[in-house]
Amino acid sequence: MRTSAEYREDMRKMKPNLYIGGERAGRDDSRIKPGINVMSVTFDLAQDPEWEGLLTATSTLTSQKINRFAHLPQNSYDLIQKQKMIRLLCQRVGGCIQRCMGMDAVIALSIATKEMDDKYGTEYHRRFMDYLKVYQEKDLAGACAQTDMKGDRIKRPSEQADPDAYVHVVEVKDDGIVVRGAKISITMAAYADEIIVIPTRALREEDTDYAVAFAIPADWEGIHLITRPVSVRERKEIKCPFAEMGVSDSIVVFDNTFIPKERVFMCKEWEFGRRLALLFADSHRHSYSGCKPAVSDILCGAACLVAEANNIEKVSHVREKLSEFAGAAELSYAAGIAAAVYGEKTSSGTFFPNSIYANVGRRLTGETIFHEFNLLVEIAGGLSVTLPYEDDFSSEETKAWLEKYIMRNPKIPPEVAHRIWRLVENLTASSMAAWYEIAGVHGGGSPIMETIALNQEYDYESKKNIAKYLAGIDKELDQSKDLNTKPTFE
Amino acid sequence: MRTSAEYREDMRKMKPNLYIGGERAGRDDSRIKPGINVMSVTFDLAQDPEWEGLLTATSTLTSQKINRFAHLPQNSYDLIQKQKMIRLLCQRVGGCIQRCMGMDAVIALSIATKEMDDKYGTEYHRRFMDYLKVYQEKDLAGACAQTDMKGDRIKRPSEQADPDAYVHVVEVKDDGIVVRGAKISITMAAYADEIIVIPTRALREEDTDYAVAFAIPADWEGIHLITRPVSVRERKEIKCPFAEMGVSDSIVVFDNTFIPKERVFMCKEWEFGRRLALLFADSHRHSYSGCKPAVSDILCGAACLVAEANNIEKVSHVREKLSEFAGAAELSYAAGIAAAVYGEKTSSGTFFPNSIYANVGRRLTGETIFHEFNLLVEIAGGLSVTLPYEDDFSSEETKAWLEKYIMRNPKIPPEVAHRIWRLVENLTASSMAAWYEIAGVHGGGSPIMETIALNQEYDYESKKNIAKYLAGIDKELDQSKDLNTKPTFE
Amino acid sequence: MRTSAEYREDMRKMKPNLYIGGERAGRDDSRIKPGINVMSVTFDLAQDPEWEGLLTATSTLTSQKINRFAHLPQNSYDLIQKQKMIRLLCQRVGGCIQRCMGMDAVIALSIATKEMDDKYGTEYHRRFMDYLKVYQEKDLAGACAQTDMKGDRIKRPSEQADPDAYVHVVEVKDDGIVVRGAKISITMAAYADEIIVIPTRALREEDTDYAVAFAIPADWEGIHLITRPVSVRERKEIKCPFAEMGVSDSIVVFDNTFIPKERVFMCKEWEFGRRLALLFADSHRHSYSGCKPAVSDILCGAACLVAEANNIEKVSHVREKLSEFAGAAELSYAAGIAAAVYGEKTSSGTFFPNSIYANVGRRLTGETIFHEFNLLVEIAGGLSVTLPYEDDFSSEETKAWLEKYIMRNPKIPPEVAHRIWRLVENLTASSMAAWYEIAGVHGGGSPIMETIALNQEYDYESKKNIAKYLAGIDKELDQSKDLNTKPTFE
Amino acid sequence: MRTSAEYREDMRKMKPNLYIGGERAGRDDSRIKPGINVMSVTFDLAQDPEWEGLLTATSTLTSQKINRFAHLPQNSYDLIQKQKMIRLLCQRVGGCIQRCMGMDAVIALSIATKEMDDKYGTEYHRRFMDYLKVYQEKDLAGACAQTDMKGDRIKRPSEQADPDAYVHVVEVKDDGIVVRGAKISITMAAYADEIIVIPTRALREEDTDYAVAFAIPADWEGIHLITRPVSVRERKEIKCPFAEMGVSDSIVVFDNTFIPKERVFMCKEWEFGRRLALLFADSHRHSYSGCKPAVSDILCGAACLVAEANNIEKVSHVREKLSEFAGAAELSYAAGIAAAVYGEKTSSGTFFPNSIYANVGRRLTGETIFHEFNLLVEIAGGLSVTLPYEDDFSSEETKAWLEKYIMRNPKIPPEVAHRIWRLVENLTASSMAAWYEIAGVHGGGSPIMETIALNQEYDYESKKNIAKYLAGIDKELDQSKDLNTKPTFE
Repeated sequence: MRTSAEYREDMRKMKPNLYIGGERAGRDDSRIKPGINVMSVTFDLAQDPEWEGLLTATSTLTSQKINRFAHLPQNSYDLIQKQKMIRLLCQRVGGCIQRCMGMDAVIALSIATKEMDDKYGTEYHRRFMDYLKVYQEKDLAGACAQTDMKGDRIKRPSEQADPDAYVHVVEVKDDGIVVRGAKISITMAAYADEIIVIPTRALREEDTDYAVAFAIPADWEGIHLITRPVSVRERKEIKCPFAEMGVSDSIVVFDNTFIPKERVFMCKEWEFGRRLALLFADSHRHSYSGCKPAVSDILCGAACLVAEANNIEKVSHVREKLSEFAGAAELSYAAGIAAAVYGEKTSSGTFFPNSIYANVGRRLTGETIFHEFNLLVEIAGGLSVTLPYEDDFSSEETKAWLEKYIMRNPKIPPEVAHRIWRLVENLTASSMAAWYEIAGVHGGGSPIMETIALNQEYDYESKKNIAKYLAGIDKELDQSKDLNTKPTFE
Repeated sequence: MRTSAEYREDMRKMKPNLYIGGERAGRDDSRIKPGINVMSVTFDLAQDPEWEGLLTATSTLTSQKINRFAHLPQNSYDLIQKQKMIRLLCQRVGGCIQRCMGMDAVIALSIATKEMDDKYGTEYHRRFMDYLKVYQEKDLAGACAQTDMKGDRIKRPSEQADPDAYVHVVEVKDDGIVVRGAKISITMAAYADEIIVIPTRALREEDTDYAVAFAIPADWEGIHLITRPVSVRERKEIKCPFAEMGVSDSIVVFDNTFIPKERVFMCKEWEFGRRLALLFADSHRHSYSGCKPAVSDILCGAACLVAEANNIEKVSHVREKLSEFAGAAELSYAAGIAAAVYGEKTSSGTFFPNSIYANVGRRLTGETIFHEFNLLVEIAGGLSVTLPYEDDFSSEETKAWLEKYIMRNPKIPPEVAHRIWRLVENLTASSMAAWYEIAGVHGGGSPIMETIALNQEYDYESKKNIAKYLAGIDKELDQSKDLNTKPTFE
Repeated sequence: MRTSAEYREDMRKMKPNLYIGGERAGRDDSRIKPGINVMSVTFDLAQDPEWEGLLTATSTLTSQKINRFAHLPQNSYDLIQKQKMIRLLCQRVGGCIQRCMGMDAVIALSIATKEMDDKYGTEYHRRFMDYLKVYQEKDLAGACAQTDMKGDRIKRPSEQADPDAYVHVVEVKDDGIVVRGAKISITMAAYADEIIVIPTRALREEDTDYAVAFAIPADWEGIHLITRPVSVRERKEIKCPFAEMGVSDSIVVFDNTFIPKERVFMCKEWEFGRRLALLFADSHRHSYSGCKPAVSDILCGAACLVAEANNIEKVSHVREKLSEFAGAAELSYAAGIAAAVYGEKTSSGTFFPNSIYANVGRRLTGETIFHEFNLLVEIAGGLSVTLPYEDDFSSEETKAWLEKYIMRNPKIPPEVAHRIWRLVENLTASSMAAWYEIAGVHGGGSPIMETIALNQEYDYESKKNIAKYLAGIDKELDQSKDLNTKPTFE
Repeated sequence: MRTSAEYREDMRKMKPNLYIGGERAGRDDSRIKPGINVMSVTFDLAQDPEWEGLLTATSTLTSQKINRFAHLPQNSYDLIQKQKMIRLLCQRVGGCIQRCMGMDAVIALSIATKEMDDKYGTEYHRRFMDYLKVYQEKDLAGACAQTDMKGDRIKRPSEQADPDAYVHVVEVKDDGIVVRGAKISITMAAYADEIIVIPTRALREEDTDYAVAFAIPADWEGIHLITRPVSVRERKEIKCPFAEMGVSDSIVVFDNTFIPKERVFMCKEWEFGRRLALLFADSHRHSYSGCKPAVSDILCGAACLVAEANNIEKVSHVREKLSEFAGAAELSYAAGIAAAVYGEKTSSGTFFPNSIYANVGRRLTGETIFHEFNLLVEIAGGLSVTLPYEDDFSSEETKAWLEKYIMRNPKIPPEVAHRIWRLVENLTASSMAAWYEIAGVHGGGSPIMETIALNQEYDYESKKNIAKYLAGIDKELDQSKDLNTKPTFE
């Protein structure tokens, strides 16, 4: 497994195909360092013996110890470990660990390539497994690029005024394919080793060219990353882990980009567009049952801390608000556990979470995120957004006043109080706050997407049958489908 | 295992110590028949080979096949089966299966008696196990009587103006004890074989006499059941399962009642008042992760059915509302699964659900129940509460008009339409509706009780530590407590 | 103005065209007495000098003092008085005062008939004013029959399999018209003097026959009322105003009913279908800004009372819940005030509430009603649905026990405690509770109907213009339309 | 009335007593320019004949035309005009107009000084009116400094470890007083002419020194403003009004500051601490019924615009979300109107809004603000927080790609699409977004403060009386208090 130092070194070697604020830049640009710091934690903790078996797993391909982010889950326990690993890491970096999207893309491709081969006699699964072997051995970090620009939202890919609104195959050659289009809102692409491309949505026959999946180095010829980094205002004196971390999102432009054959995992099999898109989405929604509880944990911890600073920890309405974080965190975590316990073995051997639980869990997280920030803000008070800048706390002219007046709970010395309020300000009143709120709504699909997924997959008919039985319309009630299933660990 | 016919016969033999509407009554009173019908389903399905292993279990005491309602769970799987059994049965009877309270009391006593013996050298566990052996062999149905009258809510038992506000020990004799007081809102007591009494709340030393637990036949000398039956208006022609079912709650008066020694499982061990009360409460909150999803299933099914009758099944806002039932049902079910997966083996050998998940799950169900009735009502329309009586549908003068005008979706014939609307009316506009709404809030403890439980047990300190680490106040972060645990099935 | 005694006498004289529970009945049937009791309060308080000017108004037709329920509002003040009168009366009868629908139908017809005449040269306004003069002089109580059976909800009237799914004109004669069809969920029809019929919805040219409005005595030839009465369980000893009151809803069948010309106020003017339907709906939604605050007042008062009985009045979460009733009541009342202040004078001279405020207010009430019952139930506890029957409180065998155990707050004697719990049980756990919940959602149009109305009428374009200005897309911002208006009282 | 040019010139003349990011600064510092731009709009529109009578009023002191921000409301109409003016201006500047706090402080002092004089025979009212005359004539902009540092939240001022935790009188001299302490979160102080100081909270006798109110120039000797400016990232090419606007909050340090006698309006009258604090709070909560609807208008407009850009304007769930903005805006606006209509004339002649309506309105706004941002974000999609920087849209290397891919709705050209997304990004994903969310919760008092206010002032007793009457506990019901009041315009 790579060390974080090796990862950083690999980043430095990449070709400068980033564009940030009007300039071309390489991975050594200081604005993406916060993202690289996040990524590094996924390498560092995998080396920590304490987390052996949680951050690491045994490869099903090589039987070697690998980072769990490159592992194909084999059973319920693997999915529960995945969830737990994500919660652990997200607590460490103060939020999104970012590396899950690549993991979920790998999981989805392992399944869909097998199913395509079974149907069409293609060789995608072999190709992908060869690719995955290297991916595991080199301990690569992949960004998943799914979301297309989309153009007109109510038109399908082939109906768009601009055919490039969705990434598509422009040409098929003997040794590979040429693709064009752009993917947006691609988190982590700017400091990933690889970019893994899959379709956004269900496709129809006329959308054939839009059925395309592949993986490619992030600095490959013909790939351009227009990147927006987000982090909190840099600390000068009161350094801390939270302020070192950040994120970047990119528009990934494919400008007639050539993809070698061995890296192409879907090419025109439009019938599998929906399947591959949903496999990724559901796997990623399951990942949210790990990361979102950590976000709640962090907000809850900050709320406890600032309540202590305000000396209102025992106040009744504060206690009730704190318990809401517990509810939000543990209900979504429970949804992930249920998804694991009632998951299924796919034909590829990869074990996949139950989609109903993955969706009800993810929807809950998307519905509560703004409210949780609201709770923290209510407990913290207005100071979270009116706190003077750090420099004023060190400037000779103002330091004494601020140290005097920042004190509330007399047990908490000024510097600690300052650190608490600065964390709360960073969490709630920075552009990082907005990132967490908005990613919390949209990452993995916004609540309306989970509602749509549920409406397609939930067994309403069995519920209707219950009502028909109770109403005396049907004389019998068959409950075996829902209630004769067993948890997978039994 | 008893058949339902045997259960009914046993009921008929009991002494008439019920009081209903100003009259003394026996178990053959027609007003409690709907409750007996519910109970019967728990016997009938245990005989059904399809549900072998779900409604039945192997006794840890006798290795015989027993009804799962009398079983002590031994592992995660047993808890998941318990949840599933409850959901199954609740779907069948159109709501509360009622027999869980006895089961949860048995589970709680199996644990607390062992812990008391370990601390005090008492013999409660042996006594209780002897009792349980008979309970299992005779396949008895026990009602748990926990909630005391309570008197002034802000005073403790020993501070009350009337010392009988909580059930308490009046006298200790060689061969048993004498108790006095009353328990209220005791569901199913009117058609239970046994009444199992446990304390309501945490106790202090001065409350010693209030620390008492025992089990006793429901028609025992000195026990009086003032009973309120609830059911829907009886059907004359369009019979159906839902209309056959109902419930009764009783005030159980202990009027200087003698309890034989072998049936006393706690006597003055006030330090275990809280423990026993919470063991029951948490076990019962876990049961709600089985029954409340069934209530959502029923409401969801009725909503689907009436949406079809209104021909609005495809309307966007209806679809969104239907998906809310899916969320409510599966999130609370998932909480139960997580409680099972992260449960713990107690010293008695009984396997107990994780209390955090049991509480977040139960709280969710208590918070959503009124909203779910609201959803059904919104989809159904005002007719649910303005539907003419059944007789008008059969009366010569009005039959033709009603059959003509009840039709909405032309695919649904008048009688079926009538059955659908009658079910919806029974579900939403009857006193049964109120029972489900209010029991849905308060049964097992209202949301505020779970909030209190969470605030006592949730590990806020570990969350605060995360915030301290991220703020740079602490240099290290120990995550092992939360995240190095394993699911119990591994 | 009539006295309530005269009203009751008039009822007794009517022909028996009610059908209740399979029997034909007259207005002397005891099952509709609770509704007649409600209606009587509207006559009694109009005689009370304290409420002169609130329950009474000066007729614009005759300059006589009339009951405000028959008055055409002339200005903001009249609308505010209307709201206030409704709140007053609803507090008195423990909920819906029922007579508003007739009032709102009269208001709507006064406006629409004038507008039709202006467009078509018809004489509906004159006819209606002649009718109204008698209506005022005789102090009649009219039920508004708007909601049709509707048949298939996604089809228009003329598209239905059964042409009678909506009430329509079957034949036009020289001296009147013949109509057929049925109206459902018609509150108060069973004890109204008159039934006032208006269309349910917007109509198209092909729906011409469905554009019909008229008023007719409730016991007119060819009119049949299939009636469902709702009230709480009759009290035997602890009588009280709440238990005397109730409501009935009817299906009103028009079986080729002849309507004399002078009572026809719309006949085939399909372009005014939407206008008349909305005039009634918006006027009635404004009425909800009077009645729903009263329902909140009642629930709030009961919650205060039962909190006192439980001695938890000062508990923090109880205080917060109580304040939610204040919010619900006063926000919807405020919406009514704003609707009055920004109302408009129509061509008929009738002053009409602003529809935006009428709709946001009514929507709020429809969204909160179930939650308010939930709040009361949470404060009251489970006893609200498990309280033994009244008879058990007077029976010799059980009286002493119940009087002993009903006591919680020692300052409240048993009978008062019993009265409090009985009221709470009546309010939350009776079929009357369901009626208030469901009518609270659907009466005047459910929240989704107000959402649709808002989406048709709210000036989103002006909001979009603000965004365009702020984004620099448009250089100017015209705010005069919204913000140069004046309140009508200035 | 001043022009904005004169206001800007006056700012330039002030002494540099700001501290921003470690540096001392004057009012010409570019970082506070966005705030000065906001303030300027209040001067500019007062000159606009279109808004004569709305932004202007006739002084009760001089009968001259003055800016309404310096006006004492005399009747309901004045309060409604105040609300309307605020909504108008907030729409213009894209949010908070900031100048209200000074206005509400002036209103509060006009009333409290009169009441103190009436009780104590002091001369505060004369002093204040003399001051106000100049304030009106010079058209000054005052910042209200109310919120103290507060120290330990559960201790009173005189109990604090640091006596300076609340601003207090250190010394009383013949010609004035000396004060010490600090006020935090003081919006607009950095570019105000005057700072108006009032107490934060109710006081007891031991807190006498903390009862102090005065007004003083913002650059007075002994006043120091540690200032945190907030604005969006500066635009380079696609300029727009929203990006020109911003805000600053300051910690205002009083370091043994001398306040001349004529500017002192309360000095040790501790019994009026609560009254003055609440007068300001309630007046300011009424102001929120003007500004918060404008914030909803802006978010609604942006949501409409971005829905158009996504071409999803007609989608059902989008329509429902849009209507929520209408509800939020108009319910809080209605609460303001009701507060005006049921306001009261105080002994000073100043007309004051009804506090119940002011509080239910403000609470609603505080409860919905985060949700409204959530709604906009859901409609906009993730791009709001991943949009590349403006420079990338003009850089030669990336411009063509971004212009190509930003297009969704083909009717909207790239620059307009860019402007829309940039506005949405500014609104939702900037530190300005956090400012609006958090100020939306806390400004004027967070929801829990309004709950406390309601629980003190709402007439729960009258509601309890209704319940007692309905339950038959009381035989009579006196409704005259609530329902015999008249709107003030009648």
